[in-house]
Parts: sequence; C-alpha cells; structure tokens
Amino acid sequence: MYGPKSGLGFVAVAAILSLLLGIFIGQRSSSSSSKLPEAAHLRVKRCDSQGGYEVEERSQLQKLVEDRWESEQHLNKDILDLINTTNLRNNLKELSSRPILAGTERDNELARMIQQRFVESGFDSSELVPYDVLLSYPNQSNPNLITIHDGSDKVVFTSRFKEEVLHKDDGDPEFIHSYAAYSPPGDIKTKPGTGLIYVNYATIEDFDKLEELGIDVAGHLVIARFGKIFRGNKVTIAQERNATGIILFSDPNDVAATGTSPADVYPNSFWIPGSGMQRGTTYDGLGDPLTPGWPSTRDAYRLDEKDVVLPKIPCQPIGYDDAREILKKLGGPSPSRRVEGMVLKKSVTTLGPQLLDEFRDHSIRLQSHNSLRITKSYNVIGTIKGEVEPDRYVLYGNHRDAWGYGSIDPSSGTAEMLEVARVFGELKKKGWRPRRTMVFCSWGAEEFGLMGSTEWVEDHVNKLQDRSVAYINTDGCVSGPNLQVAASPLMWDPIKKITKLVPGVSDGETVYDEWAADFALQNKSQPVIGTLSASSDHTGFMFYCGIPSLDRHFGFDTSKYDIDIYPSYHTGYETFYLVDKFLDPNYRILQGCGRMSALLLKYFSDSAVIPYSLSKMAETIEENLVRLKANGVGERLVQIYNKFPVLEEAVTNFTQSINKFVKRIEQTKDTMGPMLLRAVNDQMMKLEQTFILPPGLPGRPLERHAIFAPSLYDAYGTSAFPGISDLLFRINTSKDKVKKEQRKETLRRHISDVTIVLQRAARFLEDFQFI
Amino acid sequence: MYGPKSGLGFVAVAAILSLLLGIFIGQRSSSSSSKLPEAAHLRVKRCDSQGGYEVEERSQLQKLVEDRWESEQHLNKDILDLINTTNLRNNLKELSSRPILAGTERDNELARMIQQRFVESGFDSSELVPYDVLLSYPNQSNPNLITIHDGSDKVVFTSRFKEEVLHKDDGDPEFIHSYAAYSPPGDIKTKPGTGLIYVNYATIEDFDKLEELGIDVAGHLVIARFGKIFRGNKVTIAQERNATGIILFSDPNDVAATGTSPADVYPNSFWIPGSGMQRGTTYDGLGDPLTPGWPSTRDAYRLDEKDVVLPKIPCQPIGYDDAREILKKLGGPSPSRRVEGMVLKKSVTTLGPQLLDEFRDHSIRLQSHNSLRITKSYNVIGTIKGEVEPDRYVLYGNHRDAWGYGSIDPSSGTAEMLEVARVFGELKKKGWRPRRTMVFCSWGAEEFGLMGSTEWVEDHVNKLQDRSVAYINTDGCVSGPNLQVAASPLMWDPIKKITKLVPGVSDGETVYDEWAADFALQNKSQPVIGTLSASSDHTGFMFYCGIPSLDRHFGFDTSKYDIDIYPSYHTGYETFYLVDKFLDPNYRILQGCGRMSALLLKYFSDSAVIPYSLSKMAETIEENLVRLKANGVGERLVQIYNKFPVLEEAVTNFTQSINKFVKRIEQTKDTMGPMLLRAVNDQMMKLEQTFILPPGLPGRPLERHAIFAPSLYDAYGTSAFPGISDLLFRINTSKDKVKKEQRKETLRRHISDVTIVLQRAARFLEDFQFI
Repeated sequence: MYGPKSGLGFVAVAAILSLLLGIFIGQRSSSSSSKLPEAAHLRVKRCDSQGGYEVEERSQLQKLVEDRWESEQHLNKDILDLINTTNLRNNLKELSSRPILAGTERDNELARMIQQRFVESGFDSSELVPYDVLLSYPNQSNPNLITIHDGSDKVVFTSRFKEEVLHKDDGDPEFIHSYAAYSPPGDIKTKPGTGLIYVNYATIEDFDKLEELGIDVAGHLVIARFGKIFRGNKVTIAQERNATGIILFSDPNDVAATGTSPADVYPNSFWIPGSGMQRGTTYDGLGDPLTPGWPSTRDAYRLDEKDVVLPKIPCQPIGYDDAREILKKLGGPSPSRRVEGMVLKKSVTTLGPQLLDEFRDHSIRLQSHNSLRITKSYNVIGTIKGEVEPDRYVLYGNHRDAWGYGSIDPSSGTAEMLEVARVFGELKKKGWRPRRTMVFCSWGAEEFGLMGSTEWVEDHVNKLQDRSVAYINTDGCVSGPNLQVAASPLMWDPIKKITKLVPGVSDGETVYDEWAADFALQNKSQPVIGTLSASSDHTGFMFYCGIPSLDRHFGFDTSKYDIDIYPSYHTGYETFYLVDKFLDPNYRILQGCGRMSALLLKYFSDSAVIPYSLSKMAETIEENLVRLKANGVGERLVQIYNKFPVLEEAVTNFTQSINKFVKRIEQTKDTMGPMLLRAVNDQMMKLEQTFILPPGLPGRPLERHAIFAPSLYDAYGTSAFPGISDLLFRINTSKDKVKKEQRKETLRRHISDVTIVLQRAARFLEDFQFI
Repeated sequence: MYGPKSGLGFVAVAAILSLLLGIFIGQRSSSSSSKLPEAAHLRVKRCDSQGGYEVEERSQLQKLVEDRWESEQHLNKDILDLINTTNLRNNLKELSSRPILAGTERDNELARMIQQRFVESGFDSSELVPYDVLLSYPNQSNPNLITIHDGSDKVVFTSRFKEEVLHKDDGDPEFIHSYAAYSPPGDIKTKPGTGLIYVNYATIEDFDKLEELGIDVAGHLVIARFGKIFRGNKVTIAQERNATGIILFSDPNDVAATGTSPADVYPNSFWIPGSGMQRGTTYDGLGDPLTPGWPSTRDAYRLDEKDVVLPKIPCQPIGYDDAREILKKLGGPSPSRRVEGMVLKKSVTTLGPQLLDEFRDHSIRLQSHNSLRITKSYNVIGTIKGEVEPDRYVLYGNHRDAWGYGSIDPSSGTAEMLEVARVFGELKKKGWRPRRTMVFCSWGAEEFGLMGSTEWVEDHVNKLQDRSVAYINTDGCVSGPNLQVAASPLMWDPIKKITKLVPGVSDGETVYDEWAADFALQNKSQPVIGTLSASSDHTGFMFYCGIPSLDRHFGFDTSKYDIDIYPSYHTGYETFYLVDKFLDPNYRILQGCGRMSALLLKYFSDSAVIPYSLSKMAETIEENLVRLKANGVGERLVQIYNKFPVLEEAVTNFTQSINKFVKRIEQTKDTMGPMLLRAVNDQMMKLEQTFILPPGLPGRPLERHAIFAPSLYDAYGTSAFPGISDLLFRINTSKDKVKKEQRKETLRRHISDVTIVLQRAARFLEDFQFI
C-alpha cells in the first residue's frame, strides 16, 4: 500500500531535505537508487513520546519523478507470467468462431464484448465510439462472377465466388462472397478474339515493360497476380493505363508453394487450395472517402459520392484454380508460358492478347455487383488512467474486423489485446496504476481503408497531438514465428530492449535472440527495423499526426519461403483451426505478442524520461539522405534546385541538435524535478510532429509526414523523403514538358519545406530559448 | 535567498507531511495561505544535540505549485513605481528622433539598440533574427506625382510628395516620400473629359451605390477618402470594379476637424495641415507575399513575383489640400457637392464623371514609381527564462518600423517595452525570476504587412503552438487618453483585473475607472472589449496559431471626435514633438501602458493556474451565434443547410463543458499537485488552438481561426463565425448561379467543420478521458 500514514512523527532530516530539494534541483530515485538509497523512500522515523522506530514510506511526492519502469522491475516478471496461453487460445477461439465483416451484427457484437471485457478488467473508461463510414459490399444473392463464353455465347466457364468448405467449422452461411471492396459494379464483356492481358503484378514497371513490348492494355481486361504491391495500387495503375477491368489471382507459388494437391494444402497444411480467394479493399485513401480530413460523425458533412476518388474499373479476386483455367483459355500464346507466368516471381512475362486458335471466338465477361453503403462502425476505446500524468497517452490499438474468420488478421491481435487488458486489470485491482494513461483501442472497419482509426484520429486530433507519447499497433500478430517490426526510429531501441526481456517463442532464450538469429541468416549483425507503411491503423497516428508509432507481428519464415504474406491472408481458410493446428499450436507466439505489447506499454507509460531512441531518428534520416542521393540522384537534385545542399546541412544540424540534447538528458536525467522532466518529455514527444506539413505531402493531404511516408505507388511500401522521391519519379516519367516544369517547381518548393521542417526540428530541441 | 541550507536537523513532521502530500494530492500555498500557513514555508525545526530552533525556509518544491502572482503581490507596487516617466520620455525621444522605415539603416540601428537594451536589462537571451522579405519602396529621386493637364497638355497642378516642414525637427532628409506600399508602378493618364470619379470610402457599399446610380467606374481613375476600412481593401475593391487607379486622401473632417487654418493644426495642435499624407501598405495578405505559410529565411523557396497576389492598380495617397484642388477641377458636377463630399461622413455622394465645362479639356495623370525589393528585416527576441516552467512562454511584442518618425506608431509602444524590460531586469538582478519564460519581441516591417511577426510565427509555429500561454501586443500605445482593448475572450477578465491595479492616467483612480467612465458615456455598465482584427502583430499568433492574444492602446477620445484614428497617423507629423507637446506631455498615459503591460505579463507568467476567463469565451461565442442568426439569417442558414442546428447544439455543449471545467478548477485549484496543475493549464492553453482549421478559412489559408477572424472585406474589422458570414455574403451577392451553388456547398461543408471544431473544443476540456 502506498497511501499516506497518519499520525505525527519525526523525520530524518538528511534524507528528507535531500529528497525535497532533490525533487526540484535534485535527484530522482530509480536508476540512481544505488547512489542515493535515501531518496528512493521517505524514511519516517517516529520519535514521539512512545520512542522511535522506523517506517519506510514511499512519498507521494516521489511519484512525480519516479521512474516506475526501473523501480517496479519486479512487476515485469509478474506480467510475463500472467499472460496466459489458455486465455489467449480461448480469446482467439471466441473471436474467430464466426466471420467479422465490418459493420455486420457479429462485428458489433464483438465490439460490445470487448467493451465489456475492458469493464471487467477494471478499466477507468470503456466506450463504444461509432462512425458512419462508407463501406462497400458484394451482393450476397447475386455474386460477382467471371465467365467465359464460346462462339455461340455458351458459358464454358464460371468462376467460384466462395471457398470450398474443407473443414467442419468453415461453412458459416454469412461468410462474405469473394469481392474487391470499393470496386465499382460493372458488366464487362470482351469482344471475341481480344482475350485478356496478363500483366504480372500490375506494377508500373510491368505495364512499362508491356508497353515496351508493344502491348497496349487500353480497352482490355487484364489479369494480374497478387503480390509485390497493395492491390488497390494495382487497380489504380491498370485504370491509369485505361484497362477496362482487372482480375486478381493468388499465385500458387505464393499460396501453395509446396504443391497444390489436397495433401499439400489446407486443411492438411497452412498452404491453401485453389479456391482460396484474397478479398480486400481497393480504395487507397485513408479513412472514409466521404469525409477526408474530418470525422464521419453522424452529422458531419459528406462529399457527394460522385466527387469521391474511388476505383473506376471493376476488379475481382479469384483463386488459382480458376486463374489457371482462365489463363489457359484466354491468357496468352502458350500454355507452358502461362504456367510459367504463374510461378515466375520476378520477371515480367510477355503474355499478350494473342489467343490460341481454339479460343479465338471466346469472350470473357466480368460481372460485379458491389454496392456502397454508409454503415455504422464501432471503435472501442478503453482507458486506464495514469496516476501521475493522466493527460499523457500511451495508445495500443488493433482492428477488430476481418474479411472472414480473421483468426490471424486481426483476431490474433485482438486475442492478445484482451489478455493484456486483463493482466493490467489484475495489477490495477491490486492498487497499481500506470504513471501515464493507457488507451486501448479496438478499431472498426480497418480492412476497408483504416476507417475506424482514421476517423477517430480526425475526431481527436488536438488531444492526440497534444498528449500522445506513442501508438503501438498490433494487427494479425501471429502468422509465423519470425518477428517483424516497423516503427518510428524513436521506438527502435525500446522495442529491442523489450524483446530482450521476453522469453523466446520457439527455441531462443529471448525474442530478441530469435529475432537476431533470423537476421543473422541474412548476415546482419542485429535485427533490422523498418519505417512504417500505411498497412494498418498506425497510419493516422504516424502520418497524419506525427505521433511516434510502432507496428509488429510474427510473420512467415522468410528464409524458408520467399512470399510476401501468409497464404491464407484474407481468404476463407484463415480459421481458428489454421492457427490452432499449424501456426501456433501451443500459443507461445501469441503469448510472445502479448508479453511484448504489455511490457512495451508499461515501458512507455512508466518510464520517467520517455525512452525514445532519439539518436536513431538522426541516424535514420542521415542514412536515408545518403540513400536518396545515391546513383547520381544527389547531383540531379542540385541541378534541379541549387539549394538542395541547404537540406543536407539541415540534416547535419538536426543530428548535432539531437546529439546535444541526448547528452544533456543523460547528464541531467537523474536530477530533474517534475516540471523539467515534463518539459523535456514534451520536447521529445512533439519532435516527430515538427515533421508534419500542415497541408500534407504534395498532392497527399492526409499523409503529412515530411520525412517518412507510405510509398505513393504502393501503400504497403515505405519511403524516406517521400515527397522528394515521388516528385523526382514523376518528373522523370513525365512526357509533358509543361507538367515536367511544374513538377520541378513543386519539387523546389518541397525541398525548401523539408529543409524548414528539419531546421524547426533542430531548434525544437534547444533549451527552450528562441535563437 | 531560497537555496538549500546544509546541516542535519529534525523537522516538524506535521508540517512536512502535509506539505509533501499537499504538493501531490494536497494544497497550494498562495491563495490558500491563510488556511494553511504551514504549507507556505518549510519549517525546519532543528532538534539536534545542540537543542532545537526554528528556521523558516521556502521549499524549492513549493515553487512548483506556488501562485507567485498571489504570493508576490508586494512586487506589483514595486513594478508600478519602477515604470518611470523620465525613462519613457527619453526612450521615445531617442526612438523617434529619425524616421524608421523598415529595412533602412536606422531601423537596423534601432534593432541593435533594442537588442543591447535587453542585454543590459539582464535578459537570458537577446537575439537579432533576420528575415529576407519583399518590401516596396518609392523612388526617392523620382517621386510619385499626380498632375492635371489642360487642353494643351500644360501641367496646371502637381501634387506634393512630402509634407511641408512646420517644426524644426521634422526635416529629416531621409523621410520617405508619400506612397502606398505594394502599389505597382504605373503611369495613367485619363482622356480629356473623363475626369475622375469620387467613390467616397471605396467600400463595397459605395461602389454598389454608384452602380445603382448608373455610374460605372470601370476604366476610370477614382478618388476616395481614407477611413472606414483598411486602405488595402479599398484598392482591392476598386480593382475588382476595374478602376484604373485610385487616389486616397485624408478627409479634413477626420484629420483637421476643428478647422484647417494654420492655428488649428500642427505644430499648433494635434490636427494636421493639408500636406499631411497617410502612407501605408496596400497589401492585404499576412507576411511576406513570396513565402505564404513558410518563413522567409535566407534560403527559403520563394514564389515568383508574377505569381503573387499584390495590388494591380496604382494607388497614391495625398493630403487634403491637394485633394481639394483635384476635386475642384475634376471630381464632379458641382464644387459645393464636392466640398460636401469631403465632410459628409456617412452618405455616399453622387459625384460622377460629369465635369464642369471649364475643365472638360483637362486630363489627370498618376505617375507611380514604386519598386519591390527583397530586404533584410530584423526582429529582436529577448527572453527572461522561467524558473519553474521555462518551456512556457508569455510573449509581449511590438513592431519597430514606422512610416516616419513613428512617435505614436510604434515608438510609444517600443518606449514602453524598453521600460518594461528594464523593470523586470531590475527585479531579476535582485534574484527574481518569473515562473514561466517571458519573451519580448521587437518586430520588423510590420507596416508592410506584419512581416516580421508573421515570418517568425511561421518559423517557430511548433514551439509557439506547443508552449505559448499568451501573446500581448502593443503598438502605437498612446494616441489619446481612452483605453481600447481587443482580445481573445480568454483574456477579457485578466485585462480588466490588471486595469484595476494600475493608477489612472488622467483623472480616474485606476485605469479601469477611467475606462469604465468612457463606456458609461455610451450607457454601457462596463467597458466593452472587442475581438481582434488583423491590425497588428498579434495576427499570426491569434489567427494562424490560435494563441490567446491581446492588443490594446490608449486612443482618441471618441466621445469628443467621431474619427477612426488619430489625425497624424502615418504622416510626417507623427513626431516626438506631437506626443511631448499635445498627446501625453507628462507621460502618464505611456506610463499607464507600461504598467499594464508589466502587470499583465507578470500575471500570465506567475499565476499558478493560468488566469484565462474561460466563461467569457463561451459567452462570446453564444452571443455571436445569436448575432449571426439575427434578421432572419438563422432561418436562411437552416434553409441552406438543414444541419445548422447541430452547430447551435455544439455551441451549447461547449458552454456546458466550459462551465463544468471552470467549476472543477475552482474546486481543485488549491489542491492540485504540479503535474495536474500543468495538465489543467495545458488544457486551457491549447483550447483556442482547437478552433484552428488546418487548411484555413475557406479561401484564406493563413487565417485559420474558425470562430473569430479579421473581416474578409476589411482587415481592420473583425467577424465572428467569419467563414459563415463571408460565404453568406458571397452567396447573397453572387449573380452567377453555378458559383452561388458552389458557395452554398462550401458553406455547408464549412458549417460542418465549425461544428466539429466546437465539438472537439468541448471534449478537449474533459477529464483527459476519451468519451
């Protein structure tokens, strides 16, 4: 118990005075407790008439500057022990027992369940927060189909619209048909003899290569495999090339790499059979397209649907069985090359619209019946109020919605979050509270375009920018044994530190050891952490607000299989059975997730000095500048804008400023009083926000981070100095002279903006003076 | 001395414990010092072997929550006494001894002088901060002229280009010629017989009235008097009506109201003679037009001058002697009506281009030779670092540049600021420091479009938004005896409180008494404070950043003279002699300025709970909503957007939220520990920022305050719900049906934005939870 004791007494003045003064000019306990044991506790020496004895009493005052992360190390073991695999399994089973499509009754039911769990965990608040967002659904009674018609218009092939049921629990009648969300309705039938064009991954490079080969996709239906880039970008690129529609298929090389016979695939392995279809959104904006930049509250103004940028050509995902059939009939000049097309990963195949004679009178038809609907989608927001700094938030979020059962994406993450909530609830019931407020977030409708998190961020942008310490994202946390982390460089050291405290999930002593071992196979001396993409709900926090964010999951073993994502991703085979049987049967990986999240939350909530890795930010920017300039690009930039070197100078100054600041904190952190502690923390907390350009990156109003951002042509990719590289790319590829010049002008302006942002950032760390 | 005492001893535990716990859960001294005297000081009772004695010692800890404004009331008297009229007179004399045109050597010399004065005052920092901004100058060897030519092209009239020297100190050879800054060069000669059109004040209403009367100004040179609206808006409006140029003159009714004979005017009174010409800018943007939204650092990207919105038609200011001459010859149908035009204040006169026969062959020529030049302009930034919260800023600024000697505008303010700096320096030399950091700012090039302050705000926007408590603006502080205040409602109560502490500057006991007496003449029960316009350097702080700001000056006695501004404003007669002889011969008004500024600075720097008048914000918004809806406008708004009532509801909720918050603070303010104190202060500090729309008001990217803003059609005016009223006005006046509909759509969107902003603001004051 930490409360005050009543009654009079006398105090050892040496201890008390050094404590009192220490708070302000003086010492903090925690890390320096070996040097100054008397400051760690208020030693109340009763020397009243009954005679003296000593009582150790932790001072309320001491709490203001105490580094609880350090002083409560013993709790870490409790937390690690409390994260329970049976609970995790039960959570996952419950969550993935039925499909959780956003906006459906089951989704809302789970929202209420999670809210209730937060309440039961003893949270200080737990609220359902709805937004009315534009979602896209297929027609369950009139499925989207691809058909092939022979010369007499007889249908000789019809695509599947749902997976074959291969395991007893997988036949939920509400399972959603295969579709690409936000793909418009459409009925496209090609003329006989025009076939369809195979465009590999539908990247810009693929289309360029085809153009080089004299194959023009304009006016044609195209077919591409999933992979390399975000599916929404495939649609956009195909649309820009004037294709009439796009079929996307799962490449067996990605989803059934060891063979496609029943014995090789689900339910006999984690690989999937030929009817597995990857659903997903094709909208590549952030949040509700009807309310860009403002929250989709009930009464908010909404753009007219016709004024909204959504895909204009229909898109339909299919499994590899159907793809094989379609390609055989209409995909290109020779079946052998077609097959090759489905397994070759890196080259652009040259399959064009030249059909085999036997199919020359065939045509192909794509019918899509999707429709848009403004739908209520709930976030659940639960908080454990901070004891010392209730107005500082450490946020932890995961979405709740899935395309199907969602056992990996997102429910492995939700299962973890519920367990972490329970564990902190346990501590809280014993009198513990974090220093800062913990905020748990279950996001709605992430799968459609980060709807729930984006709308909430837009709704609370002032609070969040003013008060947030960090955002920790989890999503599909378990799809394999290999840890993968992307984060603001400010969180790179913290996550490494935490992984060293978490027991390994397979054969390593710690998660860090296992993580390092993975990277050792790639000849890296230590784990490599990436910067963030727009792949999940951290996007609004990181790229709209500039709040340091982290996203991590245990993914596929990339040393064994060269695939982008786990095979069952967004298909009907992403089931509880899959995780329970193949991916994490003893739930040690999921336990690892929960343990990491819990300790990371506690680390950022309870450390007195927020433990950002500032130096990593400087180093990463320096490295990325070098990378940007490589291959003559530096010279090219100077040629376009002779003040580019001022940007380089600003980066150098920023690094110096960081180094100076880090040194200052090192020297003073044990002697800071509460106000200075808060001031210094504020400087660090708001540092990443200095990178925010209020109007956004050129042409990207909702992506405002000048230094790191999702790649413009692949929302799953990342880019440093994103505005510069995007504009350079567009200058290089532009054929219109006037546009080229305009873009050069925009680039000059943008380089200047980034320079100013970096200059501001450097000054932001100064000792509160204006110089 | 407040430092720690060494040596062992024993402490009275009752006091110490209540102090210790009080800091966190407990009590603050200050206002509650009568209740808890033991908490105000750390009572060290030594009871070592030598026997006990008591030492009173102010705890360093205590400083964290101490309300120094309350506990150091005795310093207020010192401050009032220290503000010295002789110093003020000396300062003013030095500052106004020569013209201070922005960017000239004298301006830079004064910048260095002020920097040095801050250093001498013992400031912790004092820096020259230059920006390279686009300024506009006339040609000193080829003055701008207006000439009248008779039928044989003989010049029968030439306008003056500088004031007649009437007092011995007024003949500085560097005094700038009469010009309107940013007016383009031009040489316009009218055809004989077309005359020029008198357009009264050149307001929209004036031009509309002329149009009604069948007088089209398109293709004509127009002449207008100063007054009613900002001169830049006159030029813009004339330009929109396709006038070819505009002459602006000082109306004797405004500048020589008691008569124009030499005995009535300068140097025999504060009224001015016929050669007094009002210089000034005609650019109506904020900050350097080449760098809108970003700072004009040396290397910053600059727009091409041709892409910048600056006045396109030439403008030239003249005195009333010349105006009378021109109007007589070319202004309208009858000399008597012309004269009437020069004295009638409120009606549009109907003088058209119909010339008297004798002048029918005359033509008029306007030659302007202004040029643009990127010029280095310095701000001076000095700080007194806060002892407890060094990262919280109370800012106090005034510009330094003038069109001439600038004895009123701005040097009465600068004289005051230097004295306030000296006084706080005195205190500091005796060991005093403020709780929060005080920032003194001498702005460059305000007269050209708030250049120095805007560029600095753009350069430091993150620091400022994150750390600023308040911005106090002074400018021409003394042009008469009547206090006039405009401010964020958050500062309305504070300024009233301060004026009650400052001795009256004329016959009242306090400044408040005098101020209230002025308003009593208008049958107001108490002084009325307005919201801010864009008239001075608070603009960037208030409207770009959302930092609570205040601007005040002692102005003309409006009960005596119905004039907009003091007569010598921006003319060659705004001299030291004018102030010294007529306006404030004993410097009591200037002393009042300095005293108010000093106490206001101390009040915001030293109060533990920042003393904003939160309720005034809610009341003002409520009142302005009622005002907005008056005269059927409410119904019209509902008709355009059926969700307008949601905005009204949001206002009501905001008020409730404010009331709840105020009650909570009242109940807890004496028991808040330092972290909660800081948290609550942060909530209040950032409240006004929740009103900031990141992309700005519709069409106004640098004016981002959704609730209060300068009026769009008069930068000197103010407007509540500015986006709504501007758009309504534009809808009502639009004749193009498509544009009308677009504007309605923009209005709907904007009402929704304002609603969201108010909803956010209400939630911002909640108890740190997300609900």
